[in-house]
Amino acid sequence: MTYCVGMMLDKGLVMMSDTRTNAGVDNISTFKKMFTWEAPGERVLTLMTAGNLATTQALVSLLDERTKAPEEREPSILAAPSMFQVARIVAQTLKDLITTHADEGQRASSTFNATVLLGGQIKGNPPRLFLIYPEGNFIEAGDETPFFQIGETKYGKPILVRAYDPAMSFEDAVKLTLVSFDSTVKANLSVGLPFDLQVIETDTYKVTHQRRITADDEYFQTISSRWGEALKTAMDSLPGFTF
Amino acid sequence: MTYCVGMMLDKGLVMMSDTRTNAGVDNISTFKKMFTWEAPGERVLTLMTAGNLATTQALVSLLDERTKAPEEREPSILAAPSMFQVARIVAQTLKDLITTHADEGQRASSTFNATVLLGGQIKGNPPRLFLIYPEGNFIEAGDETPFFQIGETKYGKPILVRAYDPAMSFEDAVKLTLVSFDSTVKANLSVGLPFDLQVIETDTYKVTHQRRITADDEYFQTISSRWGEALKTAMDSLPGFTF
Repeated sequence: MTYCVGMMLDKGLVMMSDTRTNAGVDNISTFKKMFTWEAPGERVLTLMTAGNLATTQALVSLLDERTKAPEEREPSILAAPSMFQVARIVAQTLKDLITTHADEGQRASSTFNATVLLGGQIKGNPPRLFLIYPEGNFIEAGDETPFFQIGETKYGKPILVRAYDPAMSFEDAVKLTLVSFDSTVKANLSVGLPFDLQVIETDTYKVTHQRRITADDEYFQTISSRWGEALKTAMDSLPGFTF
Repeated sequence: MTYCVGMMLDKGLVMMSDTRTNAGVDNISTFKKMFTWEAPGERVLTLMTAGNLATTQALVSLLDERTKAPEEREPSILAAPSMFQVARIVAQTLKDLITTHADEGQRASSTFNATVLLGGQIKGNPPRLFLIYPEGNFIEAGDETPFFQIGETKYGKPILVRAYDPAMSFEDAVKLTLVSFDSTVKANLSVGLPFDLQVIETDTYKVTHQRRITADDEYFQTISSRWGEALKTAMDSLPGFTF
């Protein structure tokens, strides 16, 4: 499993991913699931991946190779004219990979499936955030649904729904995202630390902040231990039930 | 989908179930999922069900018929000598029903599956709480895992994990359970009001409190609207993140 959140704020994008992969509970590993391509001052693109690790690694390698070999640059995500076109390239590449690896005798290719969050900005356009499906299509975040989750989405969703505010600061958004991750980590062993955090401020066309939050991160430990108390205080603040 | 919670407290049992059933999002109905058998002063048994409605209704009808026809009383849940034996009867009846209805040509019988929470107390023994699987086996709540959820369990779990305390009052437990239900209802259309609530106080051998919480219940509306603010206040009470 995996847990990734991509959040669109008035000020820009906040992205966070965990790093745990597993093939059964007796075989867990740590792999990066956040990948960035930058042309500083012109574009910044960040992918976060969930699903079959062989598929997502192949996807990232393919996208990356095309940005490095100018003679076979097409279709390169660094050359695409818009975020929409970048999303199309990622989606098509993902779909092709899954189709290639899926056993032809087998109709469901769910074993090789992967889902991708793509966030970023290209000069002249606003930042955009996409959720790309293994079928090769995708949806875009908007005012009504300004954040996407992939992987183990349920445990961490209620707090995002309640406390998200597009006008919030990056600092508050990171705090909120960490609480959401903490709830997920406490409930599902297949989501685990360290977390990768990235902030992309609008109109900077680069990664503004990047940090890896490890299990011994003091701030995360504080959030994790104090959130329980904070929730109890919140419960106490509600009026009491009477029979 | 469904959401049911059974909670073991020092003072007794708190049970809550939703009432929505659905066959696709375009076909939703309201059905009771909480059923009680009482022999006042001797035993009280409450079932909550999740899964295929035909299966759970047949289960309840079968169990109920056996308590009413003395000549074919065996195995009646009103005659079983212990909660463990009641759980065995329910589990075996459930398994038999699923086996009967499952298409024999089909190996997976998941279509007919159902899961059951059984809570209650029989005179001379402490109250007990069981989670019964469609395979006909079951587990019992203990000190480490003092509550069970069935159905759509994930959205409402983090708050239960954080705020549950075995020493809490029935009133606080109902408040907590309503918050957990509210988080679930807000996230999953297939869980819906009204909710059925029941409290069984230890050593009373009867249903102490029973209530149906409807969509226009004032207390629930207050909890639902104020929990969002309470969560934001809780977030604000945590130390701020700095890059």
